[in-house]
Amino acid sequence: MIPVGIIGATGMVGQKYIHLLENHPYFEVRYVAASPKSAGKSYEEAVKGRWHLSQDIPAKVKSLTVEDANDVSKAKGKCSFVFSAVEMDKERTKELENSYAQEGISVVSNNSAHRFTEDVPMLVPEINHDHVSIISEQMKQRNWKGFICVKPNCSVQSYITPIYALEKAGFKVKRMIISTMQAVSGAGFNTVEDMDMQDNVIPFIGGEEEKSEYEPAKILGKIEDGKCVHDDSIKISAHCNRVPVIDGHTATISVEFGEKKPSKEEIIALWKDFKSVPQEMDLPFAPKQPIIYHDEDNRPQPRLDRDADKGMAVSLGRLRECPVFDYRFVGLSHNTIRGAAGGGILNAELLYKKGFLK
Amino acid sequence: MIPVGIIGATGMVGQKYIHLLENHPYFEVRYVAASPKSAGKSYEEAVKGRWHLSQDIPAKVKSLTVEDANDVSKAKGKCSFVFSAVEMDKERTKELENSYAQEGISVVSNNSAHRFTEDVPMLVPEINHDHVSIISEQMKQRNWKGFICVKPNCSVQSYITPIYALEKAGFKVKRMIISTMQAVSGAGFNTVEDMDMQDNVIPFIGGEEEKSEYEPAKILGKIEDGKCVHDDSIKISAHCNRVPVIDGHTATISVEFGEKKPSKEEIIALWKDFKSVPQEMDLPFAPKQPIIYHDEDNRPQPRLDRDADKGMAVSLGRLRECPVFDYRFVGLSHNTIRGAAGGGILNAELLYKKGFLK
Amino acid sequence: MIPVGIIGATGMVGQKYIHLLENHPYFEVRYVAASPKSAGKSYEEAVKGRWHLSQDIPAKVKSLTVEDANDVSKAKGKCSFVFSAVEMDKERTKELENSYAQEGISVVSNNSAHRFTEDVPMLVPEINHDHVSIISEQMKQRNWKGFICVKPNCSVQSYITPIYALEKAGFKVKRMIISTMQAVSGAGFNTVEDMDMQDNVIPFIGGEEEKSEYEPAKILGKIEDGKCVHDDSIKISAHCNRVPVIDGHTATISVEFGEKKPSKEEIIALWKDFKSVPQEMDLPFAPKQPIIYHDEDNRPQPRLDRDADKGMAVSLGRLRECPVFDYRFVGLSHNTIRGAAGGGILNAELLYKKGFLK
Amino acid sequence: MIPVGIIGATGMVGQKYIHLLENHPYFEVRYVAASPKSAGKSYEEAVKGRWHLSQDIPAKVKSLTVEDANDVSKAKGKCSFVFSAVEMDKERTKELENSYAQEGISVVSNNSAHRFTEDVPMLVPEINHDHVSIISEQMKQRNWKGFICVKPNCSVQSYITPIYALEKAGFKVKRMIISTMQAVSGAGFNTVEDMDMQDNVIPFIGGEEEKSEYEPAKILGKIEDGKCVHDDSIKISAHCNRVPVIDGHTATISVEFGEKKPSKEEIIALWKDFKSVPQEMDLPFAPKQPIIYHDEDNRPQPRLDRDADKGMAVSLGRLRECPVFDYRFVGLSHNTIRGAAGGGILNAELLYKKGFLK
Repeated sequence: MIPVGIIGATGMVGQKYIHLLENHPYFEVRYVAASPKSAGKSYEEAVKGRWHLSQDIPAKVKSLTVEDANDVSKAKGKCSFVFSAVEMDKERTKELENSYAQEGISVVSNNSAHRFTEDVPMLVPEINHDHVSIISEQMKQRNWKGFICVKPNCSVQSYITPIYALEKAGFKVKRMIISTMQAVSGAGFNTVEDMDMQDNVIPFIGGEEEKSEYEPAKILGKIEDGKCVHDDSIKISAHCNRVPVIDGHTATISVEFGEKKPSKEEIIALWKDFKSVPQEMDLPFAPKQPIIYHDEDNRPQPRLDRDADKGMAVSLGRLRECPVFDYRFVGLSHNTIRGAAGGGILNAELLYKKGFLK
Repeated sequence: MIPVGIIGATGMVGQKYIHLLENHPYFEVRYVAASPKSAGKSYEEAVKGRWHLSQDIPAKVKSLTVEDANDVSKAKGKCSFVFSAVEMDKERTKELENSYAQEGISVVSNNSAHRFTEDVPMLVPEINHDHVSIISEQMKQRNWKGFICVKPNCSVQSYITPIYALEKAGFKVKRMIISTMQAVSGAGFNTVEDMDMQDNVIPFIGGEEEKSEYEPAKILGKIEDGKCVHDDSIKISAHCNRVPVIDGHTATISVEFGEKKPSKEEIIALWKDFKSVPQEMDLPFAPKQPIIYHDEDNRPQPRLDRDADKGMAVSLGRLRECPVFDYRFVGLSHNTIRGAAGGGILNAELLYKKGFLK
Repeated sequence: MIPVGIIGATGMVGQKYIHLLENHPYFEVRYVAASPKSAGKSYEEAVKGRWHLSQDIPAKVKSLTVEDANDVSKAKGKCSFVFSAVEMDKERTKELENSYAQEGISVVSNNSAHRFTEDVPMLVPEINHDHVSIISEQMKQRNWKGFICVKPNCSVQSYITPIYALEKAGFKVKRMIISTMQAVSGAGFNTVEDMDMQDNVIPFIGGEEEKSEYEPAKILGKIEDGKCVHDDSIKISAHCNRVPVIDGHTATISVEFGEKKPSKEEIIALWKDFKSVPQEMDLPFAPKQPIIYHDEDNRPQPRLDRDADKGMAVSLGRLRECPVFDYRFVGLSHNTIRGAAGGGILNAELLYKKGFLK
Repeated sequence: MIPVGIIGATGMVGQKYIHLLENHPYFEVRYVAASPKSAGKSYEEAVKGRWHLSQDIPAKVKSLTVEDANDVSKAKGKCSFVFSAVEMDKERTKELENSYAQEGISVVSNNSAHRFTEDVPMLVPEINHDHVSIISEQMKQRNWKGFICVKPNCSVQSYITPIYALEKAGFKVKRMIISTMQAVSGAGFNTVEDMDMQDNVIPFIGGEEEKSEYEPAKILGKIEDGKCVHDDSIKISAHCNRVPVIDGHTATISVEFGEKKPSKEEIIALWKDFKSVPQEMDLPFAPKQPIIYHDEDNRPQPRLDRDADKGMAVSLGRLRECPVFDYRFVGLSHNTIRGAAGGGILNAELLYKKGFLK
């Protein structure tokens, strides 16, 4: 068992990590760190009255002492890498994650701070597992004993894998217009005000549209000369909205292909048959079927479909012709599992199996 | 005062008509009709335990006897025209509305049954007030003593007037991709199941996308030879979704212009300055400013903006460049006021002022 | 494996039965019946677009042909007993359940129709498992080959077991005032209108207060001379309210004891230690710990606690002195699991282990 | 017109004051103050993106400069009294309010800090308008040029006036058990976390039960020797819960009378006929009928009834016999209008008409 740590362990995503890692076959949580005001308390105490999951705090984690996440020295000897779920501003996050990597404690991060750092891979294991190859370059150039690896924004997960499945089969996508209906849990604690999300829609989430539009280019890019060269051949317009849903980001997507256009049947078949490296390697958090297509008109729905395959599959439905582009459909993925803690764990599993984490 | 009737008076839209017509300067409700099972009861009794508005039932309507809507003879002598808010299938609605018009009781309808009947105008008074000119043709050809006039679907109201304001100024729109987040009140009683709309999104509303895509062509069309010639120059793709909001349909809209493209400033100015015939005629239900543009990033929101100008204005926000088309923005309108009963009343006011209703 | 049937199989509780019985160690669903309009369809077809659970329909049930529940002959040879989850009026339900029992197909019912039939036991296995003894009398008197057994109303489950745990220890309860906050799923499909349950409370549920007040007397009663003699020593006042929660009925409870009053510590210890026959018999659906007591001030909460121990445990919290009675606390139980399908299955397990079902 | 100020003007209750005071016949907002971080900005700027009301910010207030509430000198000359809607801890609130009163700027407060200060009246004008008589004593003893007057907690408003109406008629209440279902707006900004209030109930609100139980004794008390002598003859037990409702606190109430018990008809008549000093004085914010009784089984409901009579009336329903006490019923009042800003304004109107504010 590999001892792992979680920095930002008391936050919403941190809690989800702790729950999902209970009984994990490779990793065991041995180190939890958060802001100075939680430091010194037992984990149970630190989240008292703020534990937001219906499952109990795992017994082994309850009694762990929460450390100050800023003090890397506390992590040494306790864990071989950390999941980063910190909720700080970009600059402080970068510094903090760098400090861990430098000291030999690799960082599998949920935070957006390093997503556009050239030598940091932004992984969706079903799509760009080969991007792990920049890690050795990253460590060498920076003279670090550990490394940093990130995952993309939660909003991207509802469409990036389905689009990749089509591109991989030779059907290049030219343009996409996306409108999201995102869950409140994506906001972390306190970011959305409670009254706002009763009987309401908020048609704005700071920074979310930019992430939804730019991140795919890096994910779909190629590694050349120790850097990730972006593939910005798809033009994306994303409208991001917050709706009164607890978990599960839904998106409506209109797609225009390049010269080669698939038939509706081809698309559905490509989605249903899509498998990739995580499935071949049988990674514990890999969904058996990464893309689930529903035939019913009124699916996917967040409440019914967000938990599909442990919350790690993308659920699609309503593929139909688009009067403006070629096709349109609805996508849904669980924002705090596939789009956050579960996605981070899958990244770590891939890195472990490829020998980057020991 | 013109005596008016409401058929479908006990349903959700019927109730809204009754509330909105209280103290109306032109019209007074004197006749209420519904399904046979309500017939014979006082209106108060008929809606007992089912009155869904926070305002009380107007005193004068409480004691009116509900008639069987199928029996046109009951309406004769009691009202000079009716608002139709019936919830029946298309064919029965057509027959019913025809029977009223034939008998000289004109019908201002919310129902979709007659929306694509060639000689029936589908009015948005700010846009196509001149379409009333087919009414005389309609009456002549059908040898009716009354006429039928309809209003478009509620989902259309969040974007049709803003688009028209730009087209009128010479900025022709070529293509639009729209994604709606529609309120549950649009479904009428019982159509959505209650559990479905807690912590959920339903990415499908039967027939709604077709209406959202086809109705603009008729609204923007021209009357020639007693028929409405559609203007289908705008290609529209609409994704229609139901979200946990009580009132107010929100839409995200990406727009591509033809050769002539306005600047962002021009668009906002055109919207803010937009006025039309209902404003000039000072119709009681006409919003002072049909289009309200918000500068804040996080507006419009249904809970804050649906009631703008008595629920009759369209609220817009977030106009910005679209990486795929030219511009994108967010639109919002009140689905049971502007999109239903209030819109019907505005149509009736226009028809009254133009001499069609007496 | 005992072949079982479900009548009312397509409704909300019927669906829950089908899900919960997947992989059950004693029972296998072989017969599904519903209203005539579903008869003849495969189960999958019959619930198309209306399957309300996030878990898939069990593969074996998908292809079962739905029979007309009114035709008992269809059940013969296919199942040895049925779970009744029909949603009909009382008289028709009684007749229907009687017809099955008469034909030798015993009925484990969720319906309220037979709850006050003198020779029908109303079981909460942790409390009155011995009431099964009236079954032989029931069969003999009625000359039936099968029997009927019922479970109490879902609202009762949040307080009846905790109260019984105290009474059993000699602390007789004299009076209770209860106020419930009940979930919308308790209403079955369509009973609550969707708009009503957004941003609202409905302070009335037809018949619910009577059930909450009267059923405990039968549950806590004794079997004498083949009849259940009620114990109406506890006076109960129940205020029943519907709130915007999907699953999980919460109740606030003020309790007045008789002469012997427990201390706060005694009460909590009695609750934490409470075990009964289902636990001793290790029945598959028996919660390990029927009563879970939370120390945090803000628990139990429906979203966090309804699923405790597979949704079969009662969660309590906030035990404190009551300025008016002796003590007060908060109770919560899952209304469609413990309070409906799960409770029915636990009853069947008890009956099976006691030799009544073969 | 009397110039008034609002301290805590940017918070949720502060915003409500500003909206409700627009076009007030006696008072005009001339001074707005908040925390130092808002000081110096225009009011419009200070609430940018945080204005939570559907009505626009009143034009006159938009451009007022927000002052630092801690600096009383800023208020001098600008307003003759302030409404206090500050959200600080008790001690700092007391000091702050004292400092204003000392300087001759009287304080009509929403805050709980001074509710149990002996010489500060806690007013519900329909009940204890005569408590204003301790004000002169307060000013004299403290040697202040102004005074402080408070209003009770929002949760009390759903039952205190109805109970008073019965007591005043000679039907003394002995014991009450109350269970509340309170709206999220009562929590102010950020106090409840958004995720908590989707599909959930929180059975705890810090300090709320104590307020609900103790405040009635002071409200119903008598002024003797310049102090408020409490009337603690009613024993109250309150269970306070937060539910997913935006505005409107609902409560279920069981009541036991002393020797003299009214009939159901008497109670309803007493409620319907209840009028008091604010009605007689025709104060602008006084509801015409302070208590509205609904005959329908399913009323009052927060969404339908909270706005009754401008949000200032209490709505009641379901009066019926209680199997444990004598009667039980449901009460509802608007927590941010009657229970907060509207209640404060009514207090100020009373004080103005009685000559305490100039």
